[in-house]
Amino acid sequence: MSSQAHLAELLKRHNISFVAHSHPQTTDLKHWVQTLKDNHPAEVSNFAPAKSLVLKPKGGAVTNPILVVALESSPIPINPLVKSLGNKEARTAADDVTKSTLGVDKIDVTPFAIANVQDKSTVTVVVDSDALTSGDTYLAFRNFSSESTIFVKAAQMKAFLSGSAVSFTEVKLAGLAAAAPIGKADASKGPKAAQTPKAKAEVAKADAADDKKLIGITVKKDDDFSTWYQQVLTRAEMLDYYDISGCYILRPWAFNIWKVIQKFFGGEIEKLGVEDCYFPMFVSSRALNREKDHIEGFSPEVAWVTKAGQSDLAEPIAVRPTSETVMYPYYASWIRSHRDLPLRLNQWCNVVRWEFKHPQPFIRTREFLWQEGHTAFATRQEADTEVRQILDLYRRVYEEYLAVPVVPGKKSEKEKFAGGEYTTTVEGFIPTTGRAIQGATSHCLGTNFSKMFNIMIENEAKERIHVWQNSWGLSTRTLGVVVMVHGDDQGLVLPPRVASVQVIVIPTGITAKTSDDERANLFKKSEELVETLQAAGIRAKADLRDNYTPPFKYNHWELRGVPVRLEVGPKDLAKSEACSFRRDTRAKQQLPLASIVPSVQSLLEQIQSDMFAKAKKERDERLIRLETWDGFVDALNKKCIVLAPWCEREQCEEDVKDNSARSSAGDEPQDEKAPSMGAKTLCIPFDQPKDGVIEGKTKCFACDHKAKSYTLWGRSY
Amino acid sequence: MSSQAHLAELLKRHNISFVAHSHPQTTDLKHWVQTLKDNHPAEVSNFAPAKSLVLKPKGGAVTNPILVVALESSPIPINPLVKSLGNKEARTAADDVTKSTLGVDKIDVTPFAIANVQDKSTVTVVVDSDALTSGDTYLAFRNFSSESTIFVKAAQMKAFLSGSAVSFTEVKLAGLAAAAPIGKADASKGPKAAQTPKAKAEVAKADAADDKKLIGITVKKDDDFSTWYQQVLTRAEMLDYYDISGCYILRPWAFNIWKVIQKFFGGEIEKLGVEDCYFPMFVSSRALNREKDHIEGFSPEVAWVTKAGQSDLAEPIAVRPTSETVMYPYYASWIRSHRDLPLRLNQWCNVVRWEFKHPQPFIRTREFLWQEGHTAFATRQEADTEVRQILDLYRRVYEEYLAVPVVPGKKSEKEKFAGGEYTTTVEGFIPTTGRAIQGATSHCLGTNFSKMFNIMIENEAKERIHVWQNSWGLSTRTLGVVVMVHGDDQGLVLPPRVASVQVIVIPTGITAKTSDDERANLFKKSEELVETLQAAGIRAKADLRDNYTPPFKYNHWELRGVPVRLEVGPKDLAKSEACSFRRDTRAKQQLPLASIVPSVQSLLEQIQSDMFAKAKKERDERLIRLETWDGFVDALNKKCIVLAPWCEREQCEEDVKDNSARSSAGDEPQDEKAPSMGAKTLCIPFDQPKDGVIEGKTKCFACDHKAKSYTLWGRSY
Repeated sequence: MSSQAHLAELLKRHNISFVAHSHPQTTDLKHWVQTLKDNHPAEVSNFAPAKSLVLKPKGGAVTNPILVVALESSPIPINPLVKSLGNKEARTAADDVTKSTLGVDKIDVTPFAIANVQDKSTVTVVVDSDALTSGDTYLAFRNFSSESTIFVKAAQMKAFLSGSAVSFTEVKLAGLAAAAPIGKADASKGPKAAQTPKAKAEVAKADAADDKKLIGITVKKDDDFSTWYQQVLTRAEMLDYYDISGCYILRPWAFNIWKVIQKFFGGEIEKLGVEDCYFPMFVSSRALNREKDHIEGFSPEVAWVTKAGQSDLAEPIAVRPTSETVMYPYYASWIRSHRDLPLRLNQWCNVVRWEFKHPQPFIRTREFLWQEGHTAFATRQEADTEVRQILDLYRRVYEEYLAVPVVPGKKSEKEKFAGGEYTTTVEGFIPTTGRAIQGATSHCLGTNFSKMFNIMIENEAKERIHVWQNSWGLSTRTLGVVVMVHGDDQGLVLPPRVASVQVIVIPTGITAKTSDDERANLFKKSEELVETLQAAGIRAKADLRDNYTPPFKYNHWELRGVPVRLEVGPKDLAKSEACSFRRDTRAKQQLPLASIVPSVQSLLEQIQSDMFAKAKKERDERLIRLETWDGFVDALNKKCIVLAPWCEREQCEEDVKDNSARSSAGDEPQDEKAPSMGAKTLCIPFDQPKDGVIEGKTKCFACDHKAKSYTLWGRSY
Repeated sequence: MSSQAHLAELLKRHNISFVAHSHPQTTDLKHWVQTLKDNHPAEVSNFAPAKSLVLKPKGGAVTNPILVVALESSPIPINPLVKSLGNKEARTAADDVTKSTLGVDKIDVTPFAIANVQDKSTVTVVVDSDALTSGDTYLAFRNFSSESTIFVKAAQMKAFLSGSAVSFTEVKLAGLAAAAPIGKADASKGPKAAQTPKAKAEVAKADAADDKKLIGITVKKDDDFSTWYQQVLTRAEMLDYYDISGCYILRPWAFNIWKVIQKFFGGEIEKLGVEDCYFPMFVSSRALNREKDHIEGFSPEVAWVTKAGQSDLAEPIAVRPTSETVMYPYYASWIRSHRDLPLRLNQWCNVVRWEFKHPQPFIRTREFLWQEGHTAFATRQEADTEVRQILDLYRRVYEEYLAVPVVPGKKSEKEKFAGGEYTTTVEGFIPTTGRAIQGATSHCLGTNFSKMFNIMIENEAKERIHVWQNSWGLSTRTLGVVVMVHGDDQGLVLPPRVASVQVIVIPTGITAKTSDDERANLFKKSEELVETLQAAGIRAKADLRDNYTPPFKYNHWELRGVPVRLEVGPKDLAKSEACSFRRDTRAKQQLPLASIVPSVQSLLEQIQSDMFAKAKKERDERLIRLETWDGFVDALNKKCIVLAPWCEREQCEEDVKDNSARSSAGDEPQDEKAPSMGAKTLCIPFDQPKDGVIEGKTKCFACDHKAKSYTLWGRSY
């Protein structure tokens, strides 16, 4: 296969649209540029020839190359550039180095070659910011053959690089060539600059003044939400990107939040009599296909194991997308009489749904962690009751722990769980994008599955009846929601109840004049303070690293969202006080050490409730009530969700989606899960407005039928 | 494909050896029998023609057939038979029923047809015990074609049926035909009889006298260990078989033990500064193949995902067999300076090792749960220290929680972790089989992986060095060990510390004369007793089911291994006492209610330490010290493990395995993991005998070289 065919295939695999163009053979860069001027595809009238260069940092590992992508017209000032990345010098990499690191020959290098790199963290990609000034400009890549050119839009290349795990830096090469040396400052330009290994090292050595520039979030939440989200997750060390698309690494800072949720929810369902168990991850296709509607809902996303070692399996085995069809054949054998009921099992496990659409950390991933509860009852009433008990626990996870307000309600027929009878949900809201997000769902499966799997009992009346079943699940999506809702331009903001570090104690006020004894005493007092707080059950920690300045430490822990900082300086100690800093409001306050425990406790409770109140206010301001279609799309475009009277007909829901999609401005990124971002029903809130639907009178907001309920609509994740 | 080819393929898939034999066409059963007499393969001189019959219980679901396999010469007395299974009547199943349930035409039915049944729990298989009198006898199956016969040894058929999840009952059909009705009694003959749905129902109705016969373990631990093990696991509801071979369902009774282990071990490593995280389950082949020795060790057992939905993946993705190659590329990007060390991460997750050898619940399974710790240090010393700290925690899990004695030591070069520097282990012992079992391992990986993955730091001396790494894991195998070591002929015996129910309170002494008030008071007192115990942190529960007799309840909880039973009868209450029963020793004792909490607490502690002492005594009696080869194989055949001076040469280890294998009597079942059950080194115990190896003097027990250490040898799981 020609190297161009390779690139074309690679671009297809990553859903990157491109234009391939053949032309007379060109001898060199200049000749090529001229050729494209004279002869280029009509659709790419707006294009810029690009060049790619591979550098090997001097002294750096051969396996840590720097890939530079620039406009053909831009200079590439190698030394100022590598200095700005924290390296001493570099030279252009030899062919073998290029081949061994990027998997292509030197002449075949393009930014897309990083797709061949297994451990993307080893590569630094620098992109000429001039090449990115307009996302719609096509960049022309020559390297693969002097007889053809491949055109890719700048925005697509950038998305590809941001989405991969490489350290990706934007640098204005022209500027860099002119003014030098501007080292660190420049490095901070790139969204991921601080992640380049050397830059990290730089940080450690850097003086306080530069700290912030170097480690902070470099985009504003409101300006570029997706880059902001990615930066917060990676730089707060919540998560790291993985070399298999759609899979992510949950680092301890994120996993600890999940553990808090597990502890609360696990404890509550145990009180309800639910028991933990573990079923196999693999499902035979026979079992998977047992419930038709169900499998229709999942089959497009099922991952199949077909080989073990060198041998092919007799029949492919599915990896569970959810466990109804894994568990219920055995429920049938365990449940024989009403005395075997209720059967209430839960498991905490991983599931796989191989989505082909844009994955997003925590929100839409190919593997994720969740709990799934699967219960069986003799009567509909018991099942109905449990559905709501569990949904209320989900509400409490969001509202009482994550400080995120949610709307509990029932899903429309169109949006309900495949194969179930009805689905209840708690719906969250992300103000920055104006999109709603399904928080967790609790399904009543009715007797649909028990009929398929012959789960029958003899009831007291000695009749053979099918059992009533529920299933309910809460996933690590929760972690994405808490970041999106509370994070700010400084980074993460964690609600105290889920923060693994609630209070960070930082000794400060050390100057050249400070004596060693004073300094030692300061550190000792800080440790004592932590012990006092820990003794009271507060998750406190002291940052006593001596190689970082206080301002650096402030930024470090603000970025990670620690709710409260206690600064302890000589002056504070003199007054036997500490200075508290609230991450959420950035408010400072002197606290007497004598009563530090109660003060900190009430401060943490205050922060928890303030964060919820703030999020609820933002949500409520964006929850518009409408009686007619007028202003519906306008409200969506203004990033609101809408409560409106609805007829509950599926056709009507389809129409609303189409109509709200067509009219929606292109300012929202396309999302396959919500085609053209048309509005979906989020839920029919259990809490209907007092002046609600009047039977047979109130009209549907979107059609001529009568309304059945006030339903919540919105663009959604 | 002919139906015979189908069967042949099916047998191959299940590693069931068979002989296929073609012969002149036969018209009926008699003709076929005669034909085989005149003309059969030489190797199957010892055979018996078999017949298969499918019955549909009257009133039972069409989907719950009874498959009867009998000697052609045996009668099949349908009604007495189905009665003995708890059904009223049955008739032979129609063709369509046979096809829809067993997936084959009526004339093609053999016991192996159950391989086609997705939910095996729906099928009851009855085997004529006369067909199983000699395991070496070939059973001849005709049905697939009147022109050919397939011969399978009785033992292989039985193993196949026992290994599948069907309700499998042995019944002496001849006897049944003669004497009738002997209902329940007969049903109890089969190892899995009590699991047939109807039999279960029977149990409920059964009077005390029959309870035991019906639900108990039907084989003795010493007579048929593997059937005993399977019965204990399934009937104590620890585990259920799954329709994918090598995968099992962990039911709450087992999972709760795992949770106790997680709580203890998780808490201890947290104190050591280890943090929990979660890495993806999928590994790219590129990453997986990075460490050569490592991948050699695992590749034969790796499961590969090659399809998602309908589309083939660009490249196959492996399911983690362990996570070194998943995690370490990212360690390389996170670890830049000595300040980033130590890095100590742990995850609780599932892993997949697709073994093709006999799977065994908990002990050798294709998917299992474990914790895997992965740590990195700047110095060898830190790594060495942690390896031993973790190993000691593993020892404590076994000795302090599971009451199972283990020998901590170092693995030989041959037995160490693939790709690591050295492996430490805790080795357990199963007296009934005389086989050792690896309990858990803590590996020092040295710098082997950090070199492969470029995990380097700049140390204080500003030198670039590779980090030192460890990995360590403990799996759900622990659950199998505790069952094998402590279980007895009545079923499970659980150590109090891991039992989810430590005390079961059972009201007793209710007779026809007992007044309703007395009865009510008895139940009330039982509940109060439970509350008292729970308030003191004892995991107590009362069995107040009114549809079961006390003796039934005794058996029910003894089978499940609950450490202490408290019987509360009118007479006991009159003396304000309760009668305690120890599951381990079956000792009874009157306990005053006034001091019930301290008495029960000390009783539980006593049981915990007595169980460990008993297991240790049994182990020590079987741990023989030898100086020379004489008596080595004899000791192994006497189900002992052997401590002997060894030269530590791999070739010598190979020779020992061969020599001990050749000489071993065939009384042990073949096991591919330990070919012909030759002896392996278990470990080089850290605790060497005082009168240990004398440098340059002591000779190896198995060759002419000098011994380096006393090493523990044995046949092993």
